Amino acid sequence: MTHGYLGKVARIDLGRRLVEVEQPDESLYKKYLGGRGLGVYYLFRDLPPKIDPLAPENEIIFATSVITGIPIAGMSRFSIIAKSPLTGGFGEAEAGGFFGSELKAAGFDALIIRGRSENPVYLSVLDGSIEVRDASPLWGKNTKEAQEEIRGELKDRLVRIASIGPAGENLVRYACIVNELHFVHGRGGLGAVMGSKRLKAVAVRGHEKVEAKDPEKVRQLQDYMRTRWKENPGSVSRSTLGTADIVMPLNALGLLPTRNFQGGSFEKAEGLSGETMKSTILTGTDGCYACPIRCKREVRAPEPYETNPSYGGPEYETIVAFGPLCEIADLGAVSKANELCNAYSLDTISAGSAIAFAMECYEDGILTKEDTGGLELRFGNADAMLQLLEMVAYRKGIGDLLAEGVKRASDKLGKGSSRFAMHVKGKELAMHDPRGKTGVGLGYALSPSGADHMQAAHDHAFAKPSRYVESLGIVEGIDPLSLDAEKVRMFVYAHLWWGLLDCLGVCKFIFIPHSAGVLTPHHLVDLVNASTGWETSLWSLMKSSERGLDLARCFNVREGFTRADDNLPQRLFDELKSGRQKGAKINEQDFQRALQLYYEMMGWNQDGVPRATKLQELDLEWTLQQISSN
Amino acid sequence: MTHGYLGKVARIDLGRRLVEVEQPDESLYKKYLGGRGLGVYYLFRDLPPKIDPLAPENEIIFATSVITGIPIAGMSRFSIIAKSPLTGGFGEAEAGGFFGSELKAAGFDALIIRGRSENPVYLSVLDGSIEVRDASPLWGKNTKEAQEEIRGELKDRLVRIASIGPAGENLVRYACIVNELHFVHGRGGLGAVMGSKRLKAVAVRGHEKVEAKDPEKVRQLQDYMRTRWKENPGSVSRSTLGTADIVMPLNALGLLPTRNFQGGSFEKAEGLSGETMKSTILTGTDGCYACPIRCKREVRAPEPYETNPSYGGPEYETIVAFGPLCEIADLGAVSKANELCNAYSLDTISAGSAIAFAMECYEDGILTKEDTGGLELRFGNADAMLQLLEMVAYRKGIGDLLAEGVKRASDKLGKGSSRFAMHVKGKELAMHDPRGKTGVGLGYALSPSGADHMQAAHDHAFAKPSRYVESLGIVEGIDPLSLDAEKVRMFVYAHLWWGLLDCLGVCKFIFIPHSAGVLTPHHLVDLVNASTGWETSLWSLMKSSERGLDLARCFNVREGFTRADDNLPQRLFDELKSGRQKGAKINEQDFQRALQLYYEMMGWNQDGVPRATKLQELDLEWTLQQISSN
Repeated sequence: MTHGYLGKVARIDLGRRLVEVEQPDESLYKKYLGGRGLGVYYLFRDLPPKIDPLAPENEIIFATSVITGIPIAGMSRFSIIAKSPLTGGFGEAEAGGFFGSELKAAGFDALIIRGRSENPVYLSVLDGSIEVRDASPLWGKNTKEAQEEIRGELKDRLVRIASIGPAGENLVRYACIVNELHFVHGRGGLGAVMGSKRLKAVAVRGHEKVEAKDPEKVRQLQDYMRTRWKENPGSVSRSTLGTADIVMPLNALGLLPTRNFQGGSFEKAEGLSGETMKSTILTGTDGCYACPIRCKREVRAPEPYETNPSYGGPEYETIVAFGPLCEIADLGAVSKANELCNAYSLDTISAGSAIAFAMECYEDGILTKEDTGGLELRFGNADAMLQLLEMVAYRKGIGDLLAEGVKRASDKLGKGSSRFAMHVKGKELAMHDPRGKTGVGLGYALSPSGADHMQAAHDHAFAKPSRYVESLGIVEGIDPLSLDAEKVRMFVYAHLWWGLLDCLGVCKFIFIPHSAGVLTPHHLVDLVNASTGWETSLWSLMKSSERGLDLARCFNVREGFTRADDNLPQRLFDELKSGRQKGAKINEQDFQRALQLYYEMMGWNQDGVPRATKLQELDLEWTLQQISSN
Repeated sequence: MTHGYLGKVARIDLGRRLVEVEQPDESLYKKYLGGRGLGVYYLFRDLPPKIDPLAPENEIIFATSVITGIPIAGMSRFSIIAKSPLTGGFGEAEAGGFFGSELKAAGFDALIIRGRSENPVYLSVLDGSIEVRDASPLWGKNTKEAQEEIRGELKDRLVRIASIGPAGENLVRYACIVNELHFVHGRGGLGAVMGSKRLKAVAVRGHEKVEAKDPEKVRQLQDYMRTRWKENPGSVSRSTLGTADIVMPLNALGLLPTRNFQGGSFEKAEGLSGETMKSTILTGTDGCYACPIRCKREVRAPEPYETNPSYGGPEYETIVAFGPLCEIADLGAVSKANELCNAYSLDTISAGSAIAFAMECYEDGILTKEDTGGLELRFGNADAMLQLLEMVAYRKGIGDLLAEGVKRASDKLGKGSSRFAMHVKGKELAMHDPRGKTGVGLGYALSPSGADHMQAAHDHAFAKPSRYVESLGIVEGIDPLSLDAEKVRMFVYAHLWWGLLDCLGVCKFIFIPHSAGVLTPHHLVDLVNASTGWETSLWSLMKSSERGLDLARCFNVREGFTRADDNLPQRLFDELKSGRQKGAKINEQDFQRALQLYYEMMGWNQDGVPRATKLQELDLEWTLQQISSN
């Protein structure tokens, strides 16, 4: 049996144990495509304003797209979307692996889950049939135990499982959702939303094949990808070293966030590099559905931090968050932190950032040994870091405070600790320092989901003209350090472009020429048309992306977000203290001017609210009654 | 010898007899593409504000594009651009034929002609070499005589010639430029600009082949076009009947402009139809470079209106302007009017409109026999019409007044005659009545060059979803009669799309599915990439189109145009008096609201001026000092 690019959408109410299945009109897919687009469409329509993200009324939406399941490298990601417990606004997180294509093969484009179950449950989604099943025996268990028990119960080792561990159950505001133990929907605390619904896991299995409308075109793209990626040094590096391949280059550039963003280089970086990982603890690699690059790592660290390869290995973000950011140089400890996060369902970026925050507070005297339960919480203390992770997951001692994220923690702590809280909209910064790539700063400030490094192709992609950049409408190279109109234009176009990838569930690496990327926007248009039989264009797809982005903005506006929430932590306006960019800082006035320019280039008003006419232009008239935009 | 998509740009100063040749940077082509884009770029940069369009400082620019010369149907058009003597603003006119590809084969992408010669001259552009040659013996002659003499002098029957006749020399404000006697740059009075420069003609010949970067892709598109056009009823109809194929359908719809736009149907329309032409006076057909459809007509009308087939035959616009609009039912007389216009270099649309205006004034008593020199200027008087054409071309009697266009004529006449002057920005309406297709009304009002029917794909193209419309980002069908936000959105997208075709020098028919069209936007992107080796996208191309459109708008703003100039003649807000749409009218308030919506969707302010931030977004920062946009 086969089916095409249009599946079904299931609405599951966990409180009432109701499952409703609908088949949306094709025009909905043409407008929203999937992923972020489809998710924000349902979230905006379904949610009453200003609900508690942990209330039953919140929805958690698993959304694939019109190309998910097409067996081409990079097309396997899917989005999970909910109101975020960390930011209180639009929350989204994407991950690769096999779950997305499996969900599609099971006949569903999206699952929309609401309500709260009395007892812990999990969802089984098996070939078109959805069941709410008891998960009481699984509650309290880590992700690996949960996965094994569900697979046993369903008697199928190939069931794909996205689950939470104790951190999600305990409503840690940056709890993540872990699928297959090492593909992670990391950011924004969506694991806590699952926890609040008493939803331990979602298990999917599908035997239907997703068939493209133009299989020949798909084969051509497969062939192209198969031969080309090996000729691209970036893809080969990513394949060989994983995302950790950028540890040393960024350290050399002076842009490796160190000591809670005080510095930009770490003298012991080499011990944390992809090269070191490969020559020491690497036991294998893994990849997503249909991808030959296999950038995922599997490691087994030795004593005292012995790790289980089932949980994969640390990625760049994880390495830096638990390494340089906390001044920890031990790759074993970092790998252990990674394992704990995947077992407990903790976002490694926010967790590392929360620990670095606590360390800086401790060294500054804002936190004392009394607060930490005796932990000597200095930068560099690997054992303290690992203990703290457990305390966060179980909300024990100081872990309870840190489980709230750095913004809330610093609000509660007071004593000037907010200057150490590196976040935007409550979400902790990723491991990229905007003082060396201002576009990333715009991305942090303007992401609808808070500080996110995957909002827009980073500045260096636009540093010189290329075929890739050309198709996005940028003709001349743009300075990574500027914040002028050209930079903002680049950012607008790049924001729409990467937003499109989040609507389609596409791996961004595959589309960055000097990263793993060998594909260009042209290929993506071809692929959407090959999958759907449509005749869309990059113009039309970018309009869909803008639709999703503006709708996410509208969601936040309705929640009460204002221009003041598009900010950066003060530290980024101060000088970097170490590394090649020592002394670099972002000019705050220039940054504010750039934000204003962005609003206006996007057709938003000076308060950052999409103008009524922009919403009309995007076929979003229906939102007008809910936000006062002009 | 071959050359590629990048040629040279020649600047010719007729006063100083100076020829300068430059090779623009490729980035200029990436931003502006050619045609309108390139033309308005030079015009805006070079012209001081508020000069007299007939002064030597005006420039007349012949501009091809990065795909001109690629031998595929529909890609042969080129633009002529100048400040318009008819509107006082941005003026542009496009025509097909062979001149554009010949200019490219001669090594030039654009000719920029300024100054005024003391004596009449013509330009010869022969294989990279440009000469200013004496045309004194040609002055006063019609276009055919001029063409033959120049070909004789240059000893080459294949020299392609664009020239003016007496109307251009006599500065008739709607004088056109005629190439090959029947491909006409009709609108906006650009022939008068040539006349004011004492430039009789431009003659081009090139032997260099224009080579595409990807000849195989070009061959594929050729093959596609070659087989597909015959399967498309619209193309076959256009091939069989020419553009006159729409006379009967539009009459049946009640949208055939009749009696100076009083009515919408003409009881004698059949005698003017493409079918009648074919079965009576048609002697042959002609087509543009590389086009198998051959929609151009050649006719020989019998006595008393015997015509010479060298001047071709009347197109739809010409037929209606001299037929129903003047209530004239004689195809011979209409064909004669067409011949006279091509011989004298008069725009048939404006000329027919000026005559209909005069007829209505006459019947209303505003003009008398005394004014007309004895002509009985009633609707339906074919002989009077033909006499009047000569009087206009030579500015004799009442012809001198009508040579100014209906706006200036009605201003001078007074007595309420302005209600019969069917124009926008001084340019006479084309033969499409917006009361049945409101998007055409938006096009008339918002065209930077005044009332123009080729601004945006007409409403019926969007009446139901199609693959064509899909690639432009419109998912659902749109009502041809509405003026709501959906219609304005459709118009914005369509305006950018057809504007793109004017930047690339592309025949719009080839891209209208139910007209001659078999190609879609996807093919155009492929073609640009095949020609240039770029990797552009519809997104990037639409940005280039918007750049050209906004720059043309800025040109008009700098000239002093305001929101009030974006209007329609009052008659269109009144009821149609005959035909199937009898009683139809445009709601003026709705129309004003739609204009406002358009401005804001385009990123213009409420006065219709592009916002500074929009200009920055389009890489047009450099215009900011010249217009105060915010």
